[in-house]
This record gives sequence, structure tokens and C-alpha cells, in this order.
Amino acid sequence: MNGAAHITLVPDLMWHRGEFRTGLAVTLAGDRIAAVGPRDDAAGPRTLLPGKALLPGLVNAHSHSFQRLLRGHAQVQRGELKRSDFFSWRETMYRLAASLTPDDLLVVARHAFTEMLSSGITAVGEFHYLHHCPDGQRYADPHETSWSLIQAAKDVGIRLCLLRASYLRAGAGKPLQPLQRRFSDGSVEACVTLTTDLAARVAAASDGRVTAGIAPHSLRALPAEAVVQLAVAAQRLDAPLHMHVAEQPAEIEEVRSEHGNTPLAVLASCGVLTPRFVAVHATHVTAAELDAMASAGAGICLCPATEADLGDGAFATPEALCRGLSLSLGTDDHITMDLLRQAGDLEMRERLRQQHRLVLPRAPHALLDAATAGGASALRLPCGRIEPGRLADLVAVDLEHPALAGWEPSANALTACLLYSSGSATVSDVWVAGEHLVQSRGHATADAHRFAFANLARRIWS
Amino acid sequence: MNGAAHITLVPDLMWHRGEFRTGLAVTLAGDRIAAVGPRDDAAGPRTLLPGKALLPGLVNAHSHSFQRLLRGHAQVQRGELKRSDFFSWRETMYRLAASLTPDDLLVVARHAFTEMLSSGITAVGEFHYLHHCPDGQRYADPHETSWSLIQAAKDVGIRLCLLRASYLRAGAGKPLQPLQRRFSDGSVEACVTLTTDLAARVAAASDGRVTAGIAPHSLRALPAEAVVQLAVAAQRLDAPLHMHVAEQPAEIEEVRSEHGNTPLAVLASCGVLTPRFVAVHATHVTAAELDAMASAGAGICLCPATEADLGDGAFATPEALCRGLSLSLGTDDHITMDLLRQAGDLEMRERLRQQHRLVLPRAPHALLDAATAGGASALRLPCGRIEPGRLADLVAVDLEHPALAGWEPSANALTACLLYSSGSATVSDVWVAGEHLVQSRGHATADAHRFAFANLARRIWS
Repeated sequence: MNGAAHITLVPDLMWHRGEFRTGLAVTLAGDRIAAVGPRDDAAGPRTLLPGKALLPGLVNAHSHSFQRLLRGHAQVQRGELKRSDFFSWRETMYRLAASLTPDDLLVVARHAFTEMLSSGITAVGEFHYLHHCPDGQRYADPHETSWSLIQAAKDVGIRLCLLRASYLRAGAGKPLQPLQRRFSDGSVEACVTLTTDLAARVAAASDGRVTAGIAPHSLRALPAEAVVQLAVAAQRLDAPLHMHVAEQPAEIEEVRSEHGNTPLAVLASCGVLTPRFVAVHATHVTAAELDAMASAGAGICLCPATEADLGDGAFATPEALCRGLSLSLGTDDHITMDLLRQAGDLEMRERLRQQHRLVLPRAPHALLDAATAGGASALRLPCGRIEPGRLADLVAVDLEHPALAGWEPSANALTACLLYSSGSATVSDVWVAGEHLVQSRGHATADAHRFAFANLARRIWS
Repeated sequence: MNGAAHITLVPDLMWHRGEFRTGLAVTLAGDRIAAVGPRDDAAGPRTLLPGKALLPGLVNAHSHSFQRLLRGHAQVQRGELKRSDFFSWRETMYRLAASLTPDDLLVVARHAFTEMLSSGITAVGEFHYLHHCPDGQRYADPHETSWSLIQAAKDVGIRLCLLRASYLRAGAGKPLQPLQRRFSDGSVEACVTLTTDLAARVAAASDGRVTAGIAPHSLRALPAEAVVQLAVAAQRLDAPLHMHVAEQPAEIEEVRSEHGNTPLAVLASCGVLTPRFVAVHATHVTAAELDAMASAGAGICLCPATEADLGDGAFATPEALCRGLSLSLGTDDHITMDLLRQAGDLEMRERLRQQHRLVLPRAPHALLDAATAGGASALRLPCGRIEPGRLADLVAVDLEHPALAGWEPSANALTACLLYSSGSATVSDVWVAGEHLVQSRGHATADAHRFAFANLARRIWS
């Protein structure tokens, strides 16, 4: 606000209080939303958006940007046919992870973030664990690779919450594998120090679009006391706390061997489950564990396309929604950046499984909320809703797209068309912090970033 | 050929013999492919397609075009929350079906077919059952509504196989419901006569883009002797023979009550399973039934998005592919026209179910074959492959689309990106019978058809 220029956007429809509504306008002042109200009441300069529906920018709560390089290459047979699973995929991912320089990370993140913007994603939680040199030595600046990601976000304009991950071991009593060395800070103390230090430096930089969060990688990769210390740091810094939880049955068995209980039970007994905690995946959880998450106010981040790609399995979405659990969504390995279709797929998968229809409570509306307000909660960012005081992160979809034709006169049908039919292909314009970054599908530097990324992919996979 | 002008298309990559290959060009002569060979050998005028990959036009083997009106409207709760299933959806569909005039069918088909073209679909099998007036009376021309669909196809340029459906009853011993009256020709003899008559009139019209096929609706809607007579007619006319089979458990139980056996067992004993027969859905089938289909050379048409939308359940794709069954794909109720993503979803659903990766034999290549050559087989059309003598039905995808970036240097990765990541959003150009109908994403009459369709939807759902 602070005297910033006001601009009022006047779309045909606006997502407001959980549904599309007509007759509304939104006034932006600097990087914030100043007012939402009837279009006829709006003062100041107006930008008409005929044929557009405006929604909050989508929030991608779980990204490993470097894995964008795996797209296509990790989804096909190489050589003779053999059984493949999460762990064979992980070997491919580890080899890729060990090969990338800080400059490579900049290149891949610039393209991945631009592709996200073009798909309507205005904020991303980057769960980052490629910290050190491939042999585990530190770079001259121990945050070298974090700066690559932050630079990429600044270059393309996306909002970034850098969730710095801590990783110390291959499993209980198992030393790091050679390909895991660059993930590790070496000790619990170093994890906490480096994480806290990065958060302080990010805060000192006062870039309104970059924030820091804390990410104990998993109970496999960390002893419980490390998770507790990182949770304490997160509380001290008032930062989000994200962790991979219960993605694979083998991981649960490993935790059970070490702790005599499941990951969520261990986390509950450590006091880690709070409203700032987000369990990523939570694919293999019990009803009692969902109850514990719900009563603690903790969140769950689902990555539906990745959970299919990696053969993780399907999350119990109806059970989570019935308990009022706060859900967010992530693109994780980036097999697709289409967060709208991934949201819709949660309902469609349940229809296949239950052989019934309209199975998720408040779907598709609750699913669009997960992709917007739910993500904002998960990253503790004041975006995700078109409301005064929130960040001016917005997306316009093209109501003249052939896939959306016929939604009238029901705004609910438009929500269904976006999530079940068109997905992000209808996104035409994107604003982050009030800045109009994607205009009529175009982003100023997209071609240059794509070109550099394609060259990198060619080098990596040749 | 016949002295038609030759034109040679020179893309960066071409789908040929089951994979993307570089260095090839395709020469078109009239509505056919005249030659495929090394790009340097191609004679005559050349159209360079830099940054494009060329694939055979996608074949949509199962469409009810009028159901495009249901998109969005049939996927949300209306009024209070209640359990919904295939049968409650069908009530909504029946009410819609009873309300449409022949002109309405023209309007909805023009938009649906244009949307298909823009999504890379060059041929559609229209399983058509809205034949008569809502009260069951015949129109002055008993093929009135068929002409609407044929006119729509001609107006937009898509290739059409009109699969005229026969429908006589609500079930064994159950007379037609009022909302089903317009589906029925009244008797087995009338079904055969009208079907044969339409096929003759379509053949006499000698429009190279329109053919006729025969579609006994289902064993629920027809006595077995009607199916046999229609199968005989199909053989006489050398036409495709399509039928809904085993979509819902309740349907199987009904057939079992009447015949003492499952639908596929009944069809096998009637001698209907031949290479011209295509079972649509076949969701609930046994391994023995798949064996019978395979040894008869019969095909199966899957409609993955509809089978999710309607809560049908998931087809046993791995078991079908292992048996070498000929698979094709359809958009059915048109919740999405993205046939590439629907093809890819077959693999992704199996990964979720099996909690393994790379589960379908020869995926993603076999899945792209199903969407092209498999569909061509199902409709008995000489398209679906880029080979000399085949129809010049082609699709170009934009290799500069952000979702495809990074596929190089592996053509297999490009196939995976198309099916698992980008889907049809990358389609830029479409040719049917050598005619360049979609150019840089634009179709000449798309806006007019979309506008008329939106008006119709507004009228229907107000």
C-alpha cells in the first residue's frame, strides 16, 4: 500500500470465498490486494479482463526443481525390461543429483519455475537438499546452491519458499551412500546452524518474494533428535516445517525397526505435529494417524502425479477431507506442472476405486482450495485467497478456451471443467506481487530459459 | 493420388513404425500418404516443420458427441449431498438426451468435433443412438439426426465413422422407459433395415471422410438375436461392429439373469466375437474372457477418463496388453478430449494400483499406438500410421512447448513427455485427408461453433 499505485482488475468471474462469483473486482496496491468488492464500486484505473476468470495463484507446496530433468527420461524402459519401483527410480535420481553444478541448478530451476508460472503456479516450496559438492565438501559459500535457486526465482519472478532440507544418513545405522554425500551437513548441529543461518540471510535480504522454511528430510534420513531440534528452530523462526512421511511401505518398516512405531506415531510422541508441520505424501497412513494429524492441526501435502509416477500408491483423500485436514498440493518430481488436473485427479481416482461418483466432500471446490489457500497455509504465506491484505498473486483463465465452453450458467460447472477437463492449459495471465508476469500466455524470458534447459538436458542424458 | 498435387512435410521427428525417428519426410498426394522416406530424398514442394514432431492423427473410437453438454454440469453436486453412481449420472444424461433437437445435435457436434480436432483427433467413431423424436415418432427422414452429425463433421472437417446404435428395451423383459423412446427403432427388423439403409446412403454419398458402422447398444438393451442379426449385417457390409460390454457390475448381473452367463460369454457363444467386433469398456471382465477376445481377434475400446468420471472402475490393461489384444481409445462422455493424457493415464493408474513402475508392456509406445493405429483398426479406417497408402491424417506437436523441453536426446523420452506430461496441449497443427485444418492452434470456424455451443448450453442448463 504505502502510496503504491492502485490498479483494479475486472474479470467476468472471480474465485472468492470458495467459489466463482460474478460482479466482483479486485484492487491491487503494490504487492498486495487492497480491496475486493462489487465492480461498480471500484475506484481508480481499471483493467477490464473480458472473457477471463480470476483465481488466486496456485501454490506448489512441494518441488525438487532439479528433478524436472527426469521428465520423460525416468518414465521409460532403458535396455531390457525389468521390474522397476520407487527405489530403482531413486537410483536414477541420485545419479542425476550428483552430477549437477550450482550453475546447472540455476538453469533447471529457471525453466522449471517459468513452466510453473505459465501453468498458473505463483508460489513454490522448494524442498532443497543438494547443498554441497558431490563429494560432500562445502562450497566456499555453504549456501551456494540455495543462492542458485533464489536467483532463479528472482530471475523469473515466482514466489519462493526455500525449504532447506537436512539429511544425515542412508537409514538407521547406515552411513551415507556416496551418491548421498552432497545432501549431508555432517552433523545435527551443522544442520541446525546452516538452516538457521540461511533463514537469517534470506530474512536480511528483505526480498518480499523469498522466504525460508525448514525441512527435516525424513525419519529415515535423520535421527529423531535431529527432527526435534529442527522443529524447535522452525518454531523459533516461525517457519514452515516440512518432512517426507510414509511415502513407501519400506520406509515405514525401517522406522518401525528403529523406533518400534510408525513415522507419524514417532513424530507425534516427539511433539513435532503442530499447525506448522506438513507431512509430504503420507500415502500409507492409518485412520488413527489421520486423527492425530487432524487434532494437532498439522497439514498434508499430496503430490498426485508423482505418487503415481513413482508407484507410491494412492492417499486416502476422502478420509482426510472428512476430518477437515488441511491439504496442499505439490508437483514434486514435475512429471507435470498441471496442478489443477492433479487436484481433479484426486476425485477421479476415488471414483475409480470406489466405483461411485461425487465421492469427495465439497469437490471440486475443496480441491481448488487445496491448490490455493491450502498451499498458502502449508508455506505460511499470505497468498492463496483473493482478500484484502493478501498478496496480489493471481491467475486468469481464458473462458474462451474450447475446453471450458458450455460451463454457463453454473459457476460450479466452471470449477469442475477447470479441475476435471481443461487443467492449466487455460491459464492465460499470471500476476505475482501485483506484477503481470505472464501476459496472454507469454513470459518475457521463457524462451531463453527453455533453450538453456534443453541444452543442459542434452548434456546430461547424452 | 490421381494426379493430385504432392506436398512433402519435413518435421524434426516423425512417429514411424512405433517410435519417433529423425531424418524422415512424408509426401502427401490428395487425401493419401504417397511416400515416407529420408528427408533428403523427397521430391517436389517441401513444407519445413521446424520444431515440430509429426504423428498420425489420433483416432477417437468412442464418442457420444451430445454428451459434451454434460461437461462440468454432471460432475458436481446439485442440491444436497447424496451418493451418486453410474445410474444417477445416466438419469441426467437421459434427460439431456430427450431435450435435444436435430439442430441442437448439429450445434453440439460442431463444437465437440472442433475441440477434438484442436486436441489432435482426426477421426471419430460416433456411437449414435438419439435417432427419433423424443416421443419415439420418426422424423420425416428417419436419419434426420444422423445427418446432423454428418453435417457437423463435414462443416469442421473431421473424419467420421457413424456407428448407428440399435436399442430396443430397458432390459430383459423391461419395456422402454419414456426417456429412452427416441433411441428405439421399434423392432429388430427395423434396427437392421434402418442401419443398412443408412450405411447404403452414406456409401452412395461417396464422401471420403464419412463411413458407417454398426452398434448393437448392449446386451441389456437388445435381445441376443438382434445382436446376431446386426453382426450379420456388419459382415455383409464389411463394417465395424461396436458394442458396450461389461461397463457396470449391475449390467453383468442382468445379462447373467437373462442368459445364465456373462456378456462376453454370451457374445462368444453367438459367434459375434470376430476381428470386426469392438467391446467398448470391458471394465469388468475375467482372464478367460480376455483370452476369448484375444483368440477371436476382437478389439477393446477403453475410455479412461469417462470410466473414472462415471465410477465404472479400472480396466485390466496389463492383462490385455500381455495377450496382444488390440486396444483403442475413446473420449465417450468428453469430460476431456485429451486422448494422449488418457492413454498415459492407463500406465499411471497401474503404477498406483501395483505400487510399481514401468508396468505396462511397451508403454508408453503401445499406448500411443492404441490412440492411433488401434483406433484405426477399431473403425476399420486406413489411417493411424504414417505409411504409404494410408490416409493423410496427421498431427504436429510443438517441440518448443515448455512441457516438452528437455526430451532430447531420447526420442523415447519425447513419447513419455507427450503421454505422461503435456498431453494434447502441445498440438499445433492438424491435417485430415491432407487438408491443413488446424494451423498454429487455430481452426477457421472454431469460434463460431464454440459461441453457438455456449448459447445452447446456457439454454439447456438454465
